[in-house]
Amino acid sequence: MPLTLVSSQRLFEGWQKRYRHQAQSTACDMTFSIYLPPQTAQGKKVPVLYWLSGLTCSDENFSTKAGAQRVAAELGMALVIPDTSPRGDAVADDAAYDLGQGAGFYLNATQEPWRAHFRMYDYIVRELPELIEAHFPVTEQRAISGHSMGGHGALTIGLKNPERYTSISAFSPICNPCSCPWGEKAFAAYLGEARQEWEQYDATLLLEKLGVALPIKISQGSEDSFLKEQLKPEALLAVAKRVEVEVDYQLCEGYDHSYYFISTYIEAHLRFHHQHLLAS
Amino acid sequence: MPLTLVSSQRLFEGWQKRYRHQAQSTACDMTFSIYLPPQTAQGKKVPVLYWLSGLTCSDENFSTKAGAQRVAAELGMALVIPDTSPRGDAVADDAAYDLGQGAGFYLNATQEPWRAHFRMYDYIVRELPELIEAHFPVTEQRAISGHSMGGHGALTIGLKNPERYTSISAFSPICNPCSCPWGEKAFAAYLGEARQEWEQYDATLLLEKLGVALPIKISQGSEDSFLKEQLKPEALLAVAKRVEVEVDYQLCEGYDHSYYFISTYIEAHLRFHHQHLLAS
Repeated sequence: MPLTLVSSQRLFEGWQKRYRHQAQSTACDMTFSIYLPPQTAQGKKVPVLYWLSGLTCSDENFSTKAGAQRVAAELGMALVIPDTSPRGDAVADDAAYDLGQGAGFYLNATQEPWRAHFRMYDYIVRELPELIEAHFPVTEQRAISGHSMGGHGALTIGLKNPERYTSISAFSPICNPCSCPWGEKAFAAYLGEARQEWEQYDATLLLEKLGVALPIKISQGSEDSFLKEQLKPEALLAVAKRVEVEVDYQLCEGYDHSYYFISTYIEAHLRFHHQHLLAS
Repeated sequence: MPLTLVSSQRLFEGWQKRYRHQAQSTACDMTFSIYLPPQTAQGKKVPVLYWLSGLTCSDENFSTKAGAQRVAAELGMALVIPDTSPRGDAVADDAAYDLGQGAGFYLNATQEPWRAHFRMYDYIVRELPELIEAHFPVTEQRAISGHSMGGHGALTIGLKNPERYTSISAFSPICNPCSCPWGEKAFAAYLGEARQEWEQYDATLLLEKLGVALPIKISQGSEDSFLKEQLKPEALLAVAKRVEVEVDYQLCEGYDHSYYFISTYIEAHLRFHHQHLLAS
């Protein structure tokens, strides 16, 4: 699996790099970004935080706007930022921002025209970590986080694969996609009309079914315009209470859905993951 | 002079706001961003750092990518980020990225078709601070900084108006625009072929002529692809040595011209300005 270096830039004494590679799971070229903190220059292997981005994003939004590298450099963590879907002329797409390219929802599609390439679940859970761990100075310690659609991805992937991660966090996650417009539209397209197929990708339903073996931290802005209709943290929190799972949930007064919100709280999330990586 | 609020977002316990207003100096609508740190919520007036951006930028690049608000919130400074030129259908433009809209060079143009609107020097030095000080909880203490074309702007405006600022800093500034392709092209267009007209907008020539009454800090990446042909810090440093002016100049090994570079060193620049604002 050869990696093609797209760019390499210095920041916070480490290196922000973009790579392109031919992915098996999504059957197309994929681009990802990785931040290697300065500790790796001394040959040290560091743990990895996987960051899953939201609708319309590529690997660049978090890389340029969140300010996470400053904290990752201090703590000695690598950041891996995948794209949000397969891409390219040969990949199915839709004119809407919430379906198709840029809107992979971190699942394996079963329906036409999506199922050939839209296999982001396999890409994120298996293929990308294997690639990262084969090519970069990282340990097999992984944490996972994300925003909005990527918060949904981090929660569902973390809940289903607790042996692969030490902690999960999310900003403004889509908590109950089976019961919100974004989720219902995407799941119907990618997974078909049979709703029981959707349940494997719904954090609230997974938490009810599986419980949780991992620490979870969620931050949510109170002035997020998607909060009521799309994100529904109250559904997840109600289930967490019922199954007696502790979720470190913070409602952040006045904050919205943007990267300004993420940049304000990313340090707390990185320290949360660092603490659990250290303890693992 | 009424201000129209374009957006208001919370970050680092303060507020990032965008405004539009009808500017007299540039004879068109101008947009700027302002970060108001949390201290202003308690009615406190805070000093202002003016940030001048580089070619192709608007007020949004620095706002979203530099990570400056975190430090400004800690130190209690407002950040004012103007646009880089007049804009609009009625404003002259050029297809090139380094002339016309997005490339105002912080001067007052004297030539057609530019002179009606391209009066960024007057806008930055007088009109914008008057507006800011009339409408926001800020003191009349000002510092000035910028990047690339905006570093040129910060240096030239600071050198010519030492009574209006407490300190100047720049990232990767165009230090000697009279002797580099970007400067020669822009100055010929905006100011005409008479080179003596250009000298009032050249930091190296101004330093030679005026000396300096203000602390100056400059950061420059060693791997900046514009360093040799366009930026020429060695010209400024040679004059500084000759006129016995101290410039706090830092060559940052491995860094390029991007906002990744700025984000790494912005904290040091804000602390530099804060120290001189406190002392003033």
